Formats: sequence, structure tokens, C-alpha cells
Amino acid sequence: MHGLMQDWPLLVHTILDHAALNHAEREMVTRSVEGPIRRCTMADLRTRSLRVAKALQQEGVRLGDRVATMAWNTDRHVETWYGIMGLGAICHTLNPRLFAEQLVYIINHAEDRLLFVDLTFLPVIQAIRDQLPTVEKVIVLTDEAHLPADTPPGTLAYESWLDQADDDFTWARFDENTAAALCYTSGTTGNPKGVLYSHRSNVLHGLMANQSDVFALSSSDAILPIVPMFHANAWAITYAAPMAGAGLVMPGPGMDGASIWELLESEKVTCSAAVPTVWLGLLQYLDETGSQLPWLERVVIGGAACPRMMIERLEGEFDVEVVHGWGMTEMSPIGTIGAVKHATASLEGEERVDLKTKQGRSPYLVEMKVVDDEGHAQPRDGQSFGHLLVRGPAISSAYFRHEEDILTEDGWFDTGDIAHIDALGYMQITDRDKDVIKSGGEWISSIEVENAAVGCPGIAEAAVIGISHAKWGERPLLIAVRAAGSDVSKGDLLAYLEGKIATWWMPDEVVFVEALPHTATGKIKKTELREQFSDYRL
Amino acid sequence: MHGLMQDWPLLVHTILDHAALNHAEREMVTRSVEGPIRRCTMADLRTRSLRVAKALQQEGVRLGDRVATMAWNTDRHVETWYGIMGLGAICHTLNPRLFAEQLVYIINHAEDRLLFVDLTFLPVIQAIRDQLPTVEKVIVLTDEAHLPADTPPGTLAYESWLDQADDDFTWARFDENTAAALCYTSGTTGNPKGVLYSHRSNVLHGLMANQSDVFALSSSDAILPIVPMFHANAWAITYAAPMAGAGLVMPGPGMDGASIWELLESEKVTCSAAVPTVWLGLLQYLDETGSQLPWLERVVIGGAACPRMMIERLEGEFDVEVVHGWGMTEMSPIGTIGAVKHATASLEGEERVDLKTKQGRSPYLVEMKVVDDEGHAQPRDGQSFGHLLVRGPAISSAYFRHEEDILTEDGWFDTGDIAHIDALGYMQITDRDKDVIKSGGEWISSIEVENAAVGCPGIAEAAVIGISHAKWGERPLLIAVRAAGSDVSKGDLLAYLEGKIATWWMPDEVVFVEALPHTATGKIKKTELREQFSDYRL
Repeated sequence: MHGLMQDWPLLVHTILDHAALNHAEREMVTRSVEGPIRRCTMADLRTRSLRVAKALQQEGVRLGDRVATMAWNTDRHVETWYGIMGLGAICHTLNPRLFAEQLVYIINHAEDRLLFVDLTFLPVIQAIRDQLPTVEKVIVLTDEAHLPADTPPGTLAYESWLDQADDDFTWARFDENTAAALCYTSGTTGNPKGVLYSHRSNVLHGLMANQSDVFALSSSDAILPIVPMFHANAWAITYAAPMAGAGLVMPGPGMDGASIWELLESEKVTCSAAVPTVWLGLLQYLDETGSQLPWLERVVIGGAACPRMMIERLEGEFDVEVVHGWGMTEMSPIGTIGAVKHATASLEGEERVDLKTKQGRSPYLVEMKVVDDEGHAQPRDGQSFGHLLVRGPAISSAYFRHEEDILTEDGWFDTGDIAHIDALGYMQITDRDKDVIKSGGEWISSIEVENAAVGCPGIAEAAVIGISHAKWGERPLLIAVRAAGSDVSKGDLLAYLEGKIATWWMPDEVVFVEALPHTATGKIKKTELREQFSDYRL
Repeated sequence: MHGLMQDWPLLVHTILDHAALNHAEREMVTRSVEGPIRRCTMADLRTRSLRVAKALQQEGVRLGDRVATMAWNTDRHVETWYGIMGLGAICHTLNPRLFAEQLVYIINHAEDRLLFVDLTFLPVIQAIRDQLPTVEKVIVLTDEAHLPADTPPGTLAYESWLDQADDDFTWARFDENTAAALCYTSGTTGNPKGVLYSHRSNVLHGLMANQSDVFALSSSDAILPIVPMFHANAWAITYAAPMAGAGLVMPGPGMDGASIWELLESEKVTCSAAVPTVWLGLLQYLDETGSQLPWLERVVIGGAACPRMMIERLEGEFDVEVVHGWGMTEMSPIGTIGAVKHATASLEGEERVDLKTKQGRSPYLVEMKVVDDEGHAQPRDGQSFGHLLVRGPAISSAYFRHEEDILTEDGWFDTGDIAHIDALGYMQITDRDKDVIKSGGEWISSIEVENAAVGCPGIAEAAVIGISHAKWGERPLLIAVRAAGSDVSKGDLLAYLEGKIATWWMPDEVVFVEALPHTATGKIKKTELREQFSDYRL
């Protein structure tokens, strides 16, 4: 027997309708790519999004078609985003930092029909344009006056394109499981794979992001999403903020400390979200200028493990709460959040920082467990590590145009991470599963050894890989890069590690190299390292 | 094209799984019906709920069967609630304050198979037991020692009944639209009608309740739901609290000021929710004892309009934020919440209280509009009033075992209220549609005239109804009850009203009566008044 409740599908454009009606006056402020600060209201945003949808419809874009964006976080990016999805098309966000050949692969694999691009990234697109047969038009997110003179046919100024359409448009209505957005994730091997979000998953994930122990956005907040919209939905903020009626402050191309601080101050931003590198830049700016953060209440830090120092400085010196998060593109992306809870609220000093350096605990709608190689669940004791599996309504079940089912038999997604979970629910990642070193049936966390090694004076970067070993199966090899001017030795490094890691985790050998190989997004390419050292013998 | 996200149905027992795994240690504290305070953890709660589900299964209860509860807010009520729903049966919460004939009608209409009842209400059930042919067993929510000696066959002690089942049970898995709970709403006319919630609607409504501008529950909160679980799901709290990992403090039968204050103090309660009457009792207790509210941060007040004085005293004297809410059983029940927003956050004093006496603004997942008699939407200007229509995934589309569709052609539910909405989204109810007085094509709010009248010294209660009028269609008649010992006159009353309401809203006549008729839930029965005065001529 079914309940007798209304059939009200969870569609992302209902979020915009809510904001425009109940928070009509609330502002979105943008540092534009052209330079000046631009302002609009939630009501304006909806009107312009409706025009985008209508203009797309006039272009012949239909339900399920892919339309790509390569853009900074700006008002124009948000309105194209909602316009695309509100028509039932799929908004494919492109990461401009990818290598050209990856972009070509992705755009062709998605069969994008239109491409919205910021002035900044137009050269990237123009360089590969002749390899993109499915792209009918490139629409530059600017006005006629700012469009470069030498653009080829089929490249238009957004504002002129939008002038063709009024806002007399009714959002499409369809099943909530309809695809809404597409984001490719580039692993260290193989071609990038497309994560295909649905309207339902985005709405549910937005509701989850607004829970008190997650981002807790309210209508009194002004949030500055520095994490890009092409980075897994700006961590849900472009959904969560209008849902709560929070003000949006969009940084555009201004990613440096000075630009960020200027917006934090002038717009009285209460909440922000970014990867650690951005916060490093801001902290440096604060040190140089002696500026303070009087309005900022909390920051969400994710995308990479948050350094201890960053938590200590932001909370201790600047009275800004750090909300450390972990997620994946495949998880929409929020997986865990490092918020204190009733049982940990009284922790202070070192203990509080210890807790906050963990990846955190999962909010409702994310299920999480750690299993051994045979799939047996491990106890939540904060020690027993294993493969981290996740389940939930905003977590991938498959990749776009890949046949194979990527879930375990009982429906879990393997994150590829090695982690443990403690009795209070706090999870900590100890390694990637391909990087963990299996020595004598026990696991050695390459990340923990690396983290310890980079603390050694004179070491700029370090990677640890497993080398096959007759007796133990595998043993760790430490590959390190010396800091400029340093002559730190193998002996110095090993002596430094003594007592910081378990005895049997100590690397059997240390090799110094000039540089380590990296992926486009800055991660160490361990596959390449393993290849380089495939003939290495201990 | 569908998104490629996991099929993870929104089922209410996943909330309990989340709480038991990620907030295993968090407590639920209960003032038991037997007297002593009882404590358990979220992990215990899940274990006992699984046992309830297994015991019900052993009784032959199946998917879609109705199982009733008539109980205070206690641990045992929560575990039967989750046990019933986790089996796929429907938890039918009974309001013990209803008249016996209404209870008989409701239980038979629902065809309840089992009935869980608190000791307090056992006499109510025993008095009608022979009129309830579908009820196979009555299970008294106590242990063998407290079961009265004279109970008839088929009446069991809950703890003995539960001892038959262990916790080796797997929650049922089914479509998220499956019915989960049933709650009858008694209007002023006709038989009560059953609102049938689904798992989906309850989960979505719980997510909505935990948004920052709604109840904002976090794992650091301890919440005391005084509003009964039989009163529209305790306003979502029995879902929202475990979802957030908040501590639950259950008041049992202790509804008086002293008992409530004792729990607020001993359990360091941060948030609570109740109807105005309960807060009146608490304020009186505080006045008598000089007690303070050091832990309480905010209270949700709804179920009836919150008096101005209550907002002023709780916020001004006790530093407790008042969150005024409005809803209906048919809305799960949250419709609006009186939280300040960015544009109203700076209001102080009288202006802040003015804002907080409004019913509030709708959170995401509730759509709201005001229309005239012809169905045309009225402007959001804070003045244009009309019929209040609502739409959303946790709002009724029909009543249980009633054939007719109750929605408008375009899918809106008519609340039966007359209201206006202002430009910032704040809604204010001005009347019930059956009570509004139509005079010369314009509407007179009976509620506003009544509110003004009860402010007159010597007036204990007042009701305003429309009397047919040759020229104007209808004109208001004021029916008033004098306070004990008062000899306030018609002239005094009309003079008092001068300047407080529009001139053309002034009652044409005043009639004093000894008492006004009331419904079982304490509302003035205007249908009966209209009948009494059907021959009255102005």
C-alpha cells in the first residue's frame, strides 16, 4: 500500500523557484571575468536561467542532450547551469586544468552539443576546436564588447545569444531520476570516467549539505564557494545556497589571497569552501598584511587532507571554525564531514585538532563501512583498516557509457581508499588501495610514511611504493626529492623516521630523485613511479 | 536518460540505522509512565525496534497492515513506531483526547490489528474494546509487574510480549512510496479523515526539519519533543533527531511546568517543541519558582498561534529563541517557520516580535500561494488575502479510503485557511475559509476581530460569525463570554474595538453567552455557533 502524499519530483530547478519566490531579494555577487563586481538577486537569477533554457530550446537542445561549460564560479555560470538542467538537458562541467587530449576525449565521449566558455579558457577550446565534431557552437560567457575580434564562425557572445530569448518559459517536468549533470573524474590510469548525477541525487545531496553538522547554510549566511563548480558541483553549494536562501558570493577568476580576502571583507562572507592550497594563499596574505577575518564564521576544507597547521591557525588565530570534509566526484561529492559531535564537543587544544584532521563522520544519506580483502566488515575501533565502501542515493552506480556495473554484489561502491573508522563514527583514510603495501600479510600505509618523511628537514616531497620481496611479498621503498640547497642523506631521513612510524613500516631503502611525476590535478602519479622502479630489487 | 546514481530508497528505518551506527552512544532519556527516568542509547533503540519488528512478524503482521499506538512520548513508543514501520506495516497513532465514538470510528476505519497502549490510556481502550472487532491484541506498554490485575484476555504486557523475539531481524526493503504512518485529523464537521504518510514523505520531511532555518538539529543538541507523537509525527522530531544524532529527551506523561522544567535542567535540553498551552504552564512555573532556563537555546511553538507575550517573555527574559511554526497534519506537518532571515535579522524590539507572530515562511519542499475565489494568485504584498494553497512531497494528495481527489486541478492542496504573504515570504493566517465573513464583496477576518475583542478587559472568550444581511450579504456578529465577576457591556466592548480594527469590520451586534462550544482539541466550534444563531437577524 502506498502513502497518499503528493507526487512532487525532486528537480533541481524547484530549488531556484523556491529561492526566487521566498528569497527574491537575496543577492548573488560576482567578481566578473571582465573585472568589475556584478550583482543580481535570486529573482533575477531565475529570470535569466529561464531565458537560458528558452534559448537552448530554440537551438534545438532536447531532454538528455549534453551541454558543456568551462567556466569560473560566476553568475553566468550559475544561470547556464540551471537553464541547462531546467530544460532537462545535462550540464557537463569541464575542468580547464585537464590536458588537451583529456578534454578532447571527454567532450567527444559526452557528445557535447554546445559549449559555454569563459574568456579565460577560450584559447584552450580554440586550440582543440577542430577535434570536437559534436560541438555546434561555442558561446563565450561575456558580452559583444569583450568578445575577441578574431573568433571563428560559431563562436558567439553569451549576452547577444541570450538576447534572443525572453523569460516566458515553463521548466520541463520529468522523472526525478533524469540525468542532470555530468562530471568526469580522472584517475591515475585509463581514460576519464563520467559521473552522471540525477535531479534526485542533486536535490537530496543539497538537503544533506544543509544539515546542521554539515554546511548548515541559513538565509543569514553569505557563502563564497571558491571550490569550482566543475569540481563535483562546487561541493553542492550552488544547490544548497539557494535552497536555504543564503547569499552567494562568486569569486570568478580571483583565486589569490588578496582577491579572496577582498570579497570576504566587502560582502561580509560568513562561510566559504575550498581546497587547502587556497587557504594557504589566504593565510599568507593575512600574514603579509595583518588583515583579520571578522565576518567569516566557518570554512569547509576538502579535496585533499587538511594540514594540521591550517586547522590550528584558522581556529586559534582567526576564530574561524574549520569543517574538514572528504568526498569524491562519485559521491556528489560529500562523504564525511569532520564536525564535532556531542561526545567530542568538549575536546580542546591538541585533541580537538587531532579529531579535526580525521576525514570525519558520515551524515545521514551516506552509508560507510570498512572491509578486508574478503569483504568482511571490520570493527569500528579506529585501528582496523580495510577497503572503504560507501552506499547512498547520491553515490554512483555506474559510469556514463561504461557497460560494467561498478558496485559490489550487495550494492556498495568501493572508494579505492583504505581507511579505519572509530567507535564514534570518525573515519580516517590511511592509503589508496593501489598504494598500500602488503608486507607479510599486514598492510603498511604509504601515506602515513610519506607524511612522516616530508616532515624531515630538507625533504621537499616524498613517495612510498611497494617493491616485491621474496620473503615479505612487498616492502616499502621511499623515493624522495631534496629541497633546494639541501644535502639531507638517507641516514638522516631514516633516523628522522625512527619512532614516528612502526618499526616494521620503516622503508627498506631510500632513493633520491630530482622530481616526482604528477597528474594534471597535482597528485603524485604512483603508477608511473611503479613503472620506473619495476626492475628495482631490494 | 536517467542519472547513474544508486537506487537507495528513502525508508524511515535507514534513519535509525544511521543513528545506531554513527551515534551509537547518544542517549534517549524517558520519564516513564511508571515514574522513574529510563535511559537507553541509539544502539539500544535500534536493537529493541528490530525486536518489535520480529515480534510483529511472528504475530502475522504483514506489509500494509495497520498497527495502532495510543501513547505518550516515551522510548517504548519510539521503538514500536520504528519496529512497525521497519516491517512495512503502518503505524497508526491515536489521539487519546478524542471522544470515544471518534476513536471507535477511527480504529474500525483503519482496521487496526494490534494496539499498543500506555497504562494511562488503558481504561479508554477497555471501555470501547467490544466495539473494535479488528483489534486482535492490546499490548500495554509496561512490564508484567505494572499490568493491572483485572485485564481481560488478549491484553498483554509489552515487555513479556517483546521477550518472545530476539533482534535477529533484517528490515524489510520496499518502494519508498510505501505507506509508513497514519494519523487522523478531526475537522469541525464529519468523520475524522486519515492522512497516510509514506516512507519517502517522512524522510524528506525530516531532512527539511533539520535545515538551519527550521529546527536545525545537530548532534550537540538534546531535544525535548513535548508535542505528542500522535500529533502529526511530533512535528518530525522522532525522525529528525536520530537523523542528526541529537539526544532525545522524552517527557512521558509529565506535561506540567514542574516536570518539564526538571527535564530541561537535568538533561541540559537545548531545543524543545510544544503548543502554546505548554509554554504557558512552564512560564507560570518559572514565575512561581524563580527558576531560569540556562541550557535551552530555542523552542518551536506551533499547533495554535503563539501569543505575543510568550515571544516577548521567552526571548526577552529567558534568552530563548522562539521559532514560531505553522503546519497541518496533512503537511507532515511543517508548513512555515517564523525564522528571521537576512533581510529581517536586524529587526529589534516590537518589530522583531511583530515578525515572529506571523506564521512564517516556507522552507524548501513546501510551495505556497494565496488565491482568490476564482483561483487567481494574489500578489505577495502582505495585504492581499485569499485561500492558502500548498504543494510538496510531504503534503497529502488524498485521505485514506476516501475515493475523491482532494487537490485542485493543477495539484494544490487547499489548507482551508485564509492568509496573506508578504514580499519577503512571510505568511500570516487571517481566518479559516468557512469563518471568513464576506461583506459587500470584501472579506472580514473573524480571527482578527476575535483577537481584538479578547484584549478588552472583562472579556474571557469571543467568537465572530457572519449573519446574512440583505444589503451586504453578511455582517459580523460578536458572541462573547464575560470573565468571572465582570459586567463589561456591549458599549464598553465596541468602544474598545474602535481604532483597533477597520471601521467596516465593526460587529453589527454583540451577544453575551455563558460559554462557547469547543471541539475535543479545544477549538471553538463555529459550526455549532452558526447553527445556534441560524435564525438570528441583524
